[in-house]
Parts: sequence; structure tokens; C-alpha cells
Amino acid sequence: MALTPATDLGPATALVCRECGSTRDLGPFYACEECFGPLEIAYDFGGVTRARIESGPRNIWRYRGLLPVPSTVADTPNTEPGLTRLVRADNLAESLGLQSLWVKDDSGNPTHSFKDRVVAVALAAARELGFKVLACPSTGNLANAVAAAAARAGIRSAVFVPSNLESQKIITTAVYGGTFVTVDGNYDDVNRLASEIAGEQDDWAFVNVNVRPYYAEGSKTLGYEIAEQLGWRLPDQIVVPVASGSQLTKIDKAFQELIKLGLVEDRPYRVFGAQAAGCDPVAAAFKAGHDVVRPVKPDTIAKSLAIGNPADGPYVLDVARRTGGAVEDVTDAEIVEGIRLLARTEGIFGETAGGVTVATLRKLIEGGTLDPSAETVIINSGDGLKTLDAVAPVVAPSANIAPSLEAFRAAGLA
Amino acid sequence: MALTPATDLGPATALVCRECGSTRDLGPFYACEECFGPLEIAYDFGGVTRARIESGPRNIWRYRGLLPVPSTVADTPNTEPGLTRLVRADNLAESLGLQSLWVKDDSGNPTHSFKDRVVAVALAAARELGFKVLACPSTGNLANAVAAAAARAGIRSAVFVPSNLESQKIITTAVYGGTFVTVDGNYDDVNRLASEIAGEQDDWAFVNVNVRPYYAEGSKTLGYEIAEQLGWRLPDQIVVPVASGSQLTKIDKAFQELIKLGLVEDRPYRVFGAQAAGCDPVAAAFKAGHDVVRPVKPDTIAKSLAIGNPADGPYVLDVARRTGGAVEDVTDAEIVEGIRLLARTEGIFGETAGGVTVATLRKLIEGGTLDPSAETVIINSGDGLKTLDAVAPVVAPSANIAPSLEAFRAAGLA
Repeated sequence: MALTPATDLGPATALVCRECGSTRDLGPFYACEECFGPLEIAYDFGGVTRARIESGPRNIWRYRGLLPVPSTVADTPNTEPGLTRLVRADNLAESLGLQSLWVKDDSGNPTHSFKDRVVAVALAAARELGFKVLACPSTGNLANAVAAAAARAGIRSAVFVPSNLESQKIITTAVYGGTFVTVDGNYDDVNRLASEIAGEQDDWAFVNVNVRPYYAEGSKTLGYEIAEQLGWRLPDQIVVPVASGSQLTKIDKAFQELIKLGLVEDRPYRVFGAQAAGCDPVAAAFKAGHDVVRPVKPDTIAKSLAIGNPADGPYVLDVARRTGGAVEDVTDAEIVEGIRLLARTEGIFGETAGGVTVATLRKLIEGGTLDPSAETVIINSGDGLKTLDAVAPVVAPSANIAPSLEAFRAAGLA
Repeated sequence: MALTPATDLGPATALVCRECGSTRDLGPFYACEECFGPLEIAYDFGGVTRARIESGPRNIWRYRGLLPVPSTVADTPNTEPGLTRLVRADNLAESLGLQSLWVKDDSGNPTHSFKDRVVAVALAAARELGFKVLACPSTGNLANAVAAAAARAGIRSAVFVPSNLESQKIITTAVYGGTFVTVDGNYDDVNRLASEIAGEQDDWAFVNVNVRPYYAEGSKTLGYEIAEQLGWRLPDQIVVPVASGSQLTKIDKAFQELIKLGLVEDRPYRVFGAQAAGCDPVAAAFKAGHDVVRPVKPDTIAKSLAIGNPADGPYVLDVARRTGGAVEDVTDAEIVEGIRLLARTEGIFGETAGGVTVATLRKLIEGGTLDPSAETVIINSGDGLKTLDAVAPVVAPSANIAPSLEAFRAAGLA
């Protein structure tokens, strides 16, 4: 895995350590040689204009000038995620006492979660870096996204999941036909094994391990899209679910880039993080005023957010504090009610992570932390079809009747 | 339910009988007063241009000038389906020996099937016609779409399904919180009951019964989008799944309208219908050279296509014969293989109807009926997440291992 003169990573210029700030050349690296801190992409953006973006493809590649991907990325097979709907949510706003609310609905992506964004960028960069296999440890959404993207790209995938995963998630990954390994252990075991394999298999790109700096940049596209879809401006407030914390920090990074590039007006915005009470390390640190995040053992129905030791936790704290936001957490019962509220008011069936975000929004309003008169955006990062178990116990038909008009009338439903 | 001077159904001018050609004024009617034939919308299209469409919203309302909906439709709450991906499917093309293939992937719609298109149009028209409740009999996708659209519109839904429906489909409809009735009977019983209720409840719009003429027009948007996404031209060949047959006939209608309006070049195209062997009344009639379609009792895993007495069957025959196409059917085993082939080659996990279409494409090529050198489009009308049972028995992980590098090496997966 080495860069050649033909390597094209677009505007990316270097890798920079988020802890000590030291830089190194672009390549398949993810940890700082000096301090072992996480590496992030540094850029030299050329002439990025609104018009140039708007004339691009109807997917995340319209922002290729802001991502570590080749300029020709739109011509290579990939899942083409993004440009998902930004839905004006007047019903939900009214029920929560908000004046102006939007839902960024990422369930419209190819495999129905925001993971398609990060995987698409990881795939494009991995190909450029010379990797031959697209791999990941996962418990669900990421497995779907990696297996699908690799299938479409015509390369091999290698997905590792805990063997006790629900059969539903097994099917939705296995159908794409790559290498798919169940591992007798929990997610931490699988994650550790993935790192070990990455150390041995030179041409395997584990999207969330050894190409993580590239992968993580994919979440910036959520921020770009929100700004563009609002008519090239930033919202006053945004509520983002927090798992590793990467999505939240990258949305903030996107907003900052748009301001620096003059693509949106420079005005204050507040970023709020949403966690489940059963996995709330960042919310706990925020409330306690700590700078470090103490790991927890997750126990929540929001499994896609169940990362007990979030890599970007401290950076989430930075963003929330810098922008005047907050990090809040909600119980499993509140999560389920959040899913139902979004479905009933806006016809959007989100996964548990979406329920976390809606419920957190409600809690932030009730607590007076979030300004109900300011324009707000929330993220629905996944699809309720993947987490049916969460709502199964609490939703049911209104009635069961015999197939006759008399039975219908007797049921009092007219 | 009567038209008022304020009623705005856009370019729609009248209802015309598809059998005897007699016309009547627009209104909540679906059967001809003269001959009981099905009614269809007639239009007077004004100045519809490519530029005007392209400057419209990124959903089906960009085609509002070609639909029976108010000119202000984009401002009223609805699910905003459409402009789903048209995916260049080079891998699938290569595996089938085709030169140029595209997949129109309608799993990207809000509730992940093409039904969001027809329901959105039905909702817009129903509101204009004065209906207060959005209703349907259904066995799955339509139930999801109606319940979601009504929730978003802030009106009541009333969905009727057979009581033996899978719990998965119960949950995905019940979550939207409308009136949801399970009926002890099969789909025919439910359908009959819906017609009876429609006769009693003046302000209930059963989308696929008493507002069917408006509803059905929503499928035209598939045709418009394919043409626009190809750069304003028609494909040489298109393969469309056939349930009632409405989707296929409306895509043809859309192509004809685009030609008449001068929005695409007038050149020949061939339309192919795809059915399951376990519910093949239209394919059987096509092969036998009949003009009438003899009803069958469905027995197939492709439940969303399991309409034994398809209302538009004869019109499908007309279109297939007029354009030089065909109607073909495939076995359940071929359907499952079709789902897997699409997933493995393009990373698209379609529902059983998508499997029918892919398998039919393959059969048409192998039989020499479809020209492998001509540009072809196929429709994936729904999402594999809704029909997991179809592939569950045939997909599985590659291996199960202990969480160690030794176990990984021993499994021979490197």
C-alpha cells in the first residue's frame, strides 16, 4: 500500500494528528507516529463554488471537491448515496412546540442508513490507495453498507460480526455474497480481531479501522447537504445522534469549511448530541463538565449507538461547548416514543437512533436548553425496518373484524 | 364529494372510459356510467418544457404539470417520493450478456416501494376532491405507503389487511398510528369489504378503489424519470413487473406523452412484462395469443405481484404486442436467484418483485426475445428488507470462527 504518482485523492493534502497536530503524507495510516492520536485529513480546497456543486451528480459526489476522493470518483462504481430528503417537519414541530424544524432523513440511502456515505468515501479512497478488499467489523448498518458497496464495485468484501447477531441482520448482509464471518464473541472481540487482521492483510481496507481517516470524512456530506438544501445557509440548531461521535464532529467540520469557503454566511449555530441513557458516556461527561469520556458498558435498544468507548467523544464535547450546544440522553422508553412520534407526525419510520434524536430534541426543549423559536435540524440516520423489535411490543392494529359491513359498523371505526 | 370552483386538478380535464371512450366530468368516479369500464384521466397539457421540469422539486412534483394534482401540490405536506436512482448496472449486464443495462431502483422511496408514488398522487387528488380519510385494502407495501402519507399530511388513514399478515407488515403499518383494521379473510375478502365501505363512507378515499383513476397516474412518474435520467430519451427496452398491470401501462403512457409533447425523440421502444409463474395470468394470455386474461389463484413468494385477476391485464397485452415486447413468467426458485444476482452484482437488495424482474430479464435474453445489444431498463419496485423470508433459506455466512487470528487463518479466508 503506497502512493504512486497516479494516486488522486482530490483536495486532500496530508494527514494531521488531531491531538498533537503533527502531519504526515497521505497514505493508509490512521494513528499518529508521534503520539498515537487519531489522524484526520487536511485539505487544500481549490475553487469550490455553489454553482459547481449544484451542477454535480445527485449524490455525495457533488461534494467531491471537498472530500479525499479522486476527481473522477463519480465515474467509478459505488453505491452513490446522499442527497437524501430534508423534510420540513411542521407536524412534529407543532407537537413539540417548535417554530421551525427539519428532518434530514438518511433512511433514503441505498442500504437505508448514513453508513452508505462513509463507506462510499472509504471505498473510493481505498481503491486509490491500492487496497483490494473492503472490510469491517460491524453489528448491522455498516455490515450492510460495506457488503453492498463492494458488490457494486466488483471487489471482495470481508465483514465480521458477532455470531449472536439477529438472523435478520445476517440475511441482509449475506445476500450481497461477499466473505461474511460470524465470530464467537461480542463486538469488542470482533473489533479487536479486525485490527489484528488489518495488521496482517496488507490489501484489506477495514473501513472503520485502517482507512478510518478517509471513511470518517463521508459524514461531512450530511452537513453540506443540509446547508445546500436550506438554500446555502446553516440552521440555528442541529441535533445529531452520538455513537463514536464522528458524525457530529464531521457535520461541524463541514459547516466550518462552508463558512471558510464563503459558501454560507458565517453565523452562530449550536450543535447538540443525542445518546441513549443505556450508553451515555459523552452525555455524562458533558453534564459533569469533564473533558475526558469514561467508557461504559452499553445496555440499550439503540444498538447502532451502543459504543461504550466512543473514539470521538472528547471532540463531541469540544463542539457542543464551543457552539453553545449540549449532549443529552434518553431512556429506552423515550426512544420508542420518539420513533412513534416521528412516524405518526411525519410518516418517517426511523430506526432506534432516530428515536434517540427525536426524544433528545423533546428533552432539550422541555429542559429549556434548545431554543424553540430557532430553526432546528435533526438527523434520522437509519431505518425502522431494521429495528422492528424496538416498536413491536407497543404498536398494534386498531381492531380485528369479520369481513362484513356489519362487523365494520359494529367496531365503531367509521 | 363534489367539485367546487376552487378545485384544482392541474392539467386534468375529464375522465374517459378506457373501454367505450365516453367521457365524464372530473370527480370521485372510477367506473364508466355507460359500460362500467375503468375510467382514466384525460389532460390538456399546457407548455410543459424540459427546463420547467428540471427547475422543479427533486421529487415527483417536478412532473406536476403532467399529473392530476393542483399546481400548488409541492407546498402541501406529502411524502415527496420519486427521483429515485437510475443505476447503471454494468456488472449485472455483464453477467447476463447485455450491452447496456440500467436499474430504476424504487426502493429509495420514503416507505421503500413504488407505491409511495401512486399514493402521493391519490392523496393530492383526494384532498382536492374533498375526501377526509385516506384508505386502502392492502397486503403490504400499499398499507405502509398510505399510513405514512396520511400521517405526514395530518389526516386520518384507514388501512385494511388480512388478519394472517406477517407480524412484520403489521408493525410497519401500525407504527404510523392511523386506523388499522385486520380482517378475518383473504385479500379478496378485504378488497370487497373496502368497496362496500367506500359506498357508505362518502369522505373516505380508498386510493386503489374509488380514487383509482388518480392514483394510477402516479406510476407515470417512473416513465418520466427514466426518460429524464437518461438525458431526455427513451430506452430501447424496458422490463416491468406486472401485478394489476397498471405500472406497466402507465410507464407506456408516460413515454407516449413525452413523445407527443416533444420532450423526447419519437423512436421505437419495447415493453416487457414480468410475472411469477405462481401468478401468471397475463403471461399465460400473452403466450396463448389471447386478448382476455383468465384469472388464476396465486401461489408465489412474490406476494406484492400476487393479483390473480389483474385489472389492467388486457391493457398490458396491448402494450406488449403494440411495442414488440412480451410477457414472461419465472418460478419461485428463479425469483430467489434473481434477488441474489441483483444484490451480488449491483449491491441492490430488491424485494421479491425485483427478483421477478431480474429473473424475467434473464429468461427473455436466454430465449432470444430481448435484444442483448439494445439499451435496457428494469424496475426494482420494492425493498428486500420487506421480504426477508424469500432469501432466508439460501443465504448464510461464509464461516463461523473463534475470536482469534489463529481461527481466522485456519478458516482459509485470507
